[in-house]
Amino acid sequence: MSDVLERLARVLEARKNADPEKSYVASLHAKGLNKILEKVGEECTETLLAAKDAERSGESRDLVYETADLWFHSLVMLSHLGLGPDDVLAELDRRFDLSGLEEKASRTR
Amino acid sequence: MSDVLERLARVLEARKNADPEKSYVASLHAKGLNKILEKVGEECTETLLAAKDAERSGESRDLVYETADLWFHSLVMLSHLGLGPDDVLAELDRRFDLSGLEEKASRTR
Amino acid sequence: MSDVLERLARVLEARKNADPEKSYVASLHAKGLNKILEKVGEECTETLLAAKDAERSGESRDLVYETADLWFHSLVMLSHLGLGPDDVLAELDRRFDLSGLEEKASRTR
Amino acid sequence: MSDVLERLARVLEARKNADPEKSYVASLHAKGLNKILEKVGEECTETLLAAKDAERSGESRDLVYETADLWFHSLVMLSHLGLGPDDVLAELDRRFDLSGLEEKASRTR
Repeated sequence: MSDVLERLARVLEARKNADPEKSYVASLHAKGLNKILEKVGEECTETLLAAKDAERSGESRDLVYETADLWFHSLVMLSHLGLGPDDVLAELDRRFDLSGLEEKASRTR
Repeated sequence: MSDVLERLARVLEARKNADPEKSYVASLHAKGLNKILEKVGEECTETLLAAKDAERSGESRDLVYETADLWFHSLVMLSHLGLGPDDVLAELDRRFDLSGLEEKASRTR
Repeated sequence: MSDVLERLARVLEARKNADPEKSYVASLHAKGLNKILEKVGEECTETLLAAKDAERSGESRDLVYETADLWFHSLVMLSHLGLGPDDVLAELDRRFDLSGLEEKASRTR
Repeated sequence: MSDVLERLARVLEARKNADPEKSYVASLHAKGLNKILEKVGEECTETLLAAKDAERSGESRDLVYETADLWFHSLVMLSHLGLGPDDVLAELDRRFDLSGLEEKASRTR
């Protein structure tokens, strides 16, 4: 599974300039950053609701779907702004190499 | 970079039952699902604001930080509910193997 | 303008059991709490993006629209759970009568 | 209760230029729009979680608190951008005078 984000990022780059009539990804880029961010926010809300339901029901399929949607649209957002998953993964790597994850707690906001 | 999520997931599992006084991750688990979901929502908002600022300024460092925070806390959420990044990556893999990503657009909600 | 929320609340109550085919409000109630909360989250995201755009452009019309959508759907949420705007307004009144608004800052979360 | 938003708006205007060390409202304005929007997003997430918990438990106190927090911070946001509750209430009034609320469903986004 470890290369899924990289493969997905390559597909997203290839779709970036596809026909918006035929590609969902291209249609998001054509509509612009606000539309992409609306989708990120929408999928985040659906993830939160699915997590509450999963805790109660013990059924986690919807939560996996919604989290996949959230990550997917955050990758489209990164792509729209010239970034990719490696930028985020490098930041996560940097944090826990340096400090064993606890850096997060103390990072000044 | 491709194994960062897996390595991070292993660290998160190890921290799950650590001392909440010493581990940020353990403190989140001790506070419960709502606290973890509040952090996911908070980091999502900060990601949206950072993306708006990045589009305007051309400076993307904050956006990378905030997206890393969003992914990090979504991994803690998955871990709290007995899931991990492989569940989400398998779902992403399934989608674009089956249908070349466009399945997303047509998936009934 | 001061009685708009009360008048709106009365209309929302009347629509609660209307035909979901004919009433947007009734259709939200028929779909259930998750659908209503998805709308609240969606309108919140659109409000944040409109506020960022309003700060930059000086044009506030979209922000007023999106905030109206946010308040509207939060009233539907309250109505779905047997509450109304007076419950929220009484809480706001209680806070700033007691303490001149600063109570908010010190309220333990 | 019908004049609470108007009274609150007057207090918010008076606090806008108060000492940020002594006034929570002034401290939000001093920190800027992003900080205010982070609070709006945070309170929205807490409202969603409280609504899920209220549906399950039948206990609505937290939901009233969180919705009050959400409305309060959206008023601070409006104030920061030179707007007030009357702008939003006038928009809500316009919508349901014109069309009996169903305008919302058909409004082009």
